[in-house]
Amino acid sequence: MPDLAGVVRAIADEMRARPDRGEVARYIPELARADPRAFGLAVIDAAGTVAVGGDADVPFSIQSISKVFTLTLALGMIGDRLWRRVGREPSGNPFNSIVQLELERGVPRNPFINAGAIAVTDVILSGHQPREALGEILRFLQALAQDPTITIDEAVAASEKRTGFRNVALANFMRSFGVLDNPVDYTLGVYFHHCAIAMSCRQLATAGRFLAHSGRNPATGYSVVSPERARRINAVMLTCGHYDGSGEFAYRVGLPGKSGVGGGILAIAPGKASIAVWSPGLDAAGNSHLGRIALEALTKRLGWSIFGV
Amino acid sequence: MPDLAGVVRAIADEMRARPDRGEVARYIPELARADPRAFGLAVIDAAGTVAVGGDADVPFSIQSISKVFTLTLALGMIGDRLWRRVGREPSGNPFNSIVQLELERGVPRNPFINAGAIAVTDVILSGHQPREALGEILRFLQALAQDPTITIDEAVAASEKRTGFRNVALANFMRSFGVLDNPVDYTLGVYFHHCAIAMSCRQLATAGRFLAHSGRNPATGYSVVSPERARRINAVMLTCGHYDGSGEFAYRVGLPGKSGVGGGILAIAPGKASIAVWSPGLDAAGNSHLGRIALEALTKRLGWSIFGV
Amino acid sequence: MPDLAGVVRAIADEMRARPDRGEVARYIPELARADPRAFGLAVIDAAGTVAVGGDADVPFSIQSISKVFTLTLALGMIGDRLWRRVGREPSGNPFNSIVQLELERGVPRNPFINAGAIAVTDVILSGHQPREALGEILRFLQALAQDPTITIDEAVAASEKRTGFRNVALANFMRSFGVLDNPVDYTLGVYFHHCAIAMSCRQLATAGRFLAHSGRNPATGYSVVSPERARRINAVMLTCGHYDGSGEFAYRVGLPGKSGVGGGILAIAPGKASIAVWSPGLDAAGNSHLGRIALEALTKRLGWSIFGV
Amino acid sequence: MPDLAGVVRAIADEMRARPDRGEVARYIPELARADPRAFGLAVIDAAGTVAVGGDADVPFSIQSISKVFTLTLALGMIGDRLWRRVGREPSGNPFNSIVQLELERGVPRNPFINAGAIAVTDVILSGHQPREALGEILRFLQALAQDPTITIDEAVAASEKRTGFRNVALANFMRSFGVLDNPVDYTLGVYFHHCAIAMSCRQLATAGRFLAHSGRNPATGYSVVSPERARRINAVMLTCGHYDGSGEFAYRVGLPGKSGVGGGILAIAPGKASIAVWSPGLDAAGNSHLGRIALEALTKRLGWSIFGV
Repeated sequence: MPDLAGVVRAIADEMRARPDRGEVARYIPELARADPRAFGLAVIDAAGTVAVGGDADVPFSIQSISKVFTLTLALGMIGDRLWRRVGREPSGNPFNSIVQLELERGVPRNPFINAGAIAVTDVILSGHQPREALGEILRFLQALAQDPTITIDEAVAASEKRTGFRNVALANFMRSFGVLDNPVDYTLGVYFHHCAIAMSCRQLATAGRFLAHSGRNPATGYSVVSPERARRINAVMLTCGHYDGSGEFAYRVGLPGKSGVGGGILAIAPGKASIAVWSPGLDAAGNSHLGRIALEALTKRLGWSIFGV
Repeated sequence: MPDLAGVVRAIADEMRARPDRGEVARYIPELARADPRAFGLAVIDAAGTVAVGGDADVPFSIQSISKVFTLTLALGMIGDRLWRRVGREPSGNPFNSIVQLELERGVPRNPFINAGAIAVTDVILSGHQPREALGEILRFLQALAQDPTITIDEAVAASEKRTGFRNVALANFMRSFGVLDNPVDYTLGVYFHHCAIAMSCRQLATAGRFLAHSGRNPATGYSVVSPERARRINAVMLTCGHYDGSGEFAYRVGLPGKSGVGGGILAIAPGKASIAVWSPGLDAAGNSHLGRIALEALTKRLGWSIFGV
Repeated sequence: MPDLAGVVRAIADEMRARPDRGEVARYIPELARADPRAFGLAVIDAAGTVAVGGDADVPFSIQSISKVFTLTLALGMIGDRLWRRVGREPSGNPFNSIVQLELERGVPRNPFINAGAIAVTDVILSGHQPREALGEILRFLQALAQDPTITIDEAVAASEKRTGFRNVALANFMRSFGVLDNPVDYTLGVYFHHCAIAMSCRQLATAGRFLAHSGRNPATGYSVVSPERARRINAVMLTCGHYDGSGEFAYRVGLPGKSGVGGGILAIAPGKASIAVWSPGLDAAGNSHLGRIALEALTKRLGWSIFGV
Repeated sequence: MPDLAGVVRAIADEMRARPDRGEVARYIPELARADPRAFGLAVIDAAGTVAVGGDADVPFSIQSISKVFTLTLALGMIGDRLWRRVGREPSGNPFNSIVQLELERGVPRNPFINAGAIAVTDVILSGHQPREALGEILRFLQALAQDPTITIDEAVAASEKRTGFRNVALANFMRSFGVLDNPVDYTLGVYFHHCAIAMSCRQLATAGRFLAHSGRNPATGYSVVSPERARRINAVMLTCGHYDGSGEFAYRVGLPGKSGVGGGILAIAPGKASIAVWSPGLDAAGNSHLGRIALEALTKRLGWSIFGV
């Protein structure tokens, strides 16, 4: 049995030494400022042991990783009725594609592409003011991460709002099919803000623990979702968590995971650990280049792939 | 710990009692003759214990399940160079869609849609006569299943050949992009025949054991593929094994699996068991209706989901 | 030589007697109120003779017919550079499709689908306030129709603005590709308003005369565009003027024409006449049902098809 | 009134002097051998005056231009029922696209894309042996061109048969939807052969005269089709005759026309003339580069555009 702390440290060292770093996302000016040399890794196992390496305590923009938590919240609110609003099949398309949305009359393929996450946000918003809905999302993450200091990076949210024309297009397109209930501006406001939440690898790995342990956070004993729902969220992460790089991630890493264009990835080793990695450089599919490589090394060395040892 | 034999028997009984059976595939006359009341289930665990229920010894047309074995063979022949010919991303499209093939210039999305399996067959054929290539595939399956009586149902193969216009279209389309090397008739001949191999649930579960146990069949000690390759084949099965119902299968069953329009499904519980189920009635995505329900019940009762207990 | 006035009157009578009327557009509440029994026809020949029938003096919402005039204006402003912003090929898709826009990176297929007309409006707006640009478009139409009383139906514009989610999506989508220069709200504001201009058949036929006579209005002697540009605008009308019903219109009517969902059609018989017809009921492709039938009868009886007598 | 013979001669001289020639089609070896310097032009006016320039008597492979004549034949056989098999809308896609065919369940957009022409050929074949159907097509062209020496270039037909994988794909794809009635090999055999008919510009312009003169060849007095059908065939040529360059051709030339990858174009000036041009170099959309430029010059100088003088 390899030593977790040693493996994590070794991988962090290897990653920081690599010359290949991918390309930092440029489509939001605020994200473009990230340091491509940054690398952080945090792993929390079933016993609660925390192993960290590199910049594991530096907060970064979680971006699409927030979609895992909004999905969890929305399922908690309306249960399986959510699946009338959004599918759960891989899309075979980039994260912001609108083609599928036209062919399927405004119902997004899954909750982890942008359109799907906007539809999920619309469900959370329902009957509330944007500020309240956003507060609920933020408090949910603070509770999961056991850290009330987690906040939204308003500069990132404002930047996204100024430049997120594609997301405005997706939301209005869905609205034209009657798939969204709330004013588009409200839904997008909440969406842009929850994508702009800033967390460190340590905080993120803590927040993800319930998914690794049958829906229950072992530290708090608090049951976030049922065991079945935890399995199902993991399944959706596996098949849809990395846009049109989801097959590649499953093939190489072998864990359910969700990436964000801020360079973070949350990965779940069911029964074993919750893992967060961060490195701002992205690959062609928009997923963290070193993040994926680090996770591949980690699962290999620890034998954590869900597809066999 | 539930009793495996008892669980398998109970599920078989429950399935045979259900009135909902899906629709038997009609597009090949030979398949349309299958009895919709048939149901078989076979599970072989790590210790080699075989638990069967229902029509577990009745041979059926494995159809697309053969794609798992041709993928294994082709990877054995040319290794990762295979991935230049075919991708490994979920397609988000039905099994016989040609749209994606035009957009991506003849390179199929993954080896489990028809176009991808034809490309894989073309690799196996390379430099051989169709008869030889087909013999190799058949002998491979006989060896894996430890049963030399396994044969091809020539009536099904001939029926497919007479009516498989869509597959002829896919193959010629790829040929027009230079993706196939052999004469289209040769490649399709082998493809139609390996899809027409007939096996029982017991034979199929036996043949799949290497995927459950790090590439090695525990009964023979014979290492079919490396542990890493076994994991990776499982990953492709999870993300792509059920066409545009792959997300649904992962969500409900939580195991890597591959279905065929003959109503069979091979599913792998890594480290735990190889499972084959058969019931000819299909759901809207072309996967066995009762087969999927039975597997969902099985993983739930035995706690075998790869996404957590 | 048939008598123009007699033919027009006869057709108007026949149309008003027909039971089949198509479906009035419902997607804007204001349009849904139109009387399906309304029918108007106005033809102005080279000599300036005006023949009218039915409700030829009742104003209706010209909707997409305005796209002919905005195209004319934009070509006057930046000439052939316009074709860097928008293509001139038929789209083979419905008027509000977004699929093509993603595949072709935000450049609309032609100026007569919604996306293309929004791009054209953006060109007209360039460097102006929305109010000024709109004033220019309105004054252009008043001058062409020789009628300063033509106005915008503000209720229709407001209704479109409240419900035009699809157009908001198209505009933001193009904006995300950098194809629009102005704030999306400005461009859409002008677009919604010029679609809401109300004109009668008589006014519309008058405004279209320059296209029938080598770019020059015979009544005023005023040359609006060069003969070559008039021919070219007619060509774009012929190939793209009726969305995915353009082939059908060319086949049956044989004249360049542009339809609007308000039920109007402007048609040009080069060298012979400018024609406007109106009937609110639409066919499946969104073009006036009786309008098309009336034009087919008219060109047949007068031998005006551009494809031969 | 410009002198027709002089204009034709001048254009032929100008074209032969131009350095830009486009790219000779390479996808069939036989076509790739064509001399890029070749240029021919033949115009026959209503009075029967023939004006020729350049290589107007050199036979070339008419390729897709044959689709005009097979459409005419098929309409003669089953009339408007043909339109149940094939649409008449521009496709907005390249000549050999299969995407649209999947979305519209095997019904091709129009008779001038490959899929549509194959469907039309299938109608002509119906109830005949391939040899008979082909004989009928050839004799029809010989009669129209008043020249019994016109033949099929067997080397081109054989080359197309050996390499026409895309067309085999299209035909089998349609067959899978039940859109073709005859064995695919038969239909394709006839299709490949009628595309391989060789004609000179003079022969082609003669054969097209009925389309310029209300369906009747003025030289023979023989009425090939009704005036209405001639107009309608011209309309389909205008909207669909140049694949995804149809809008461009209408915009620049302003005549109904049909191009072939052999570099020929047949164009019709209704009431005025039948025109054939040939130059093997193609533009990006697969249409003769110099052919289009020559026709643009011709219509401009003679004022023959159907969209106005």
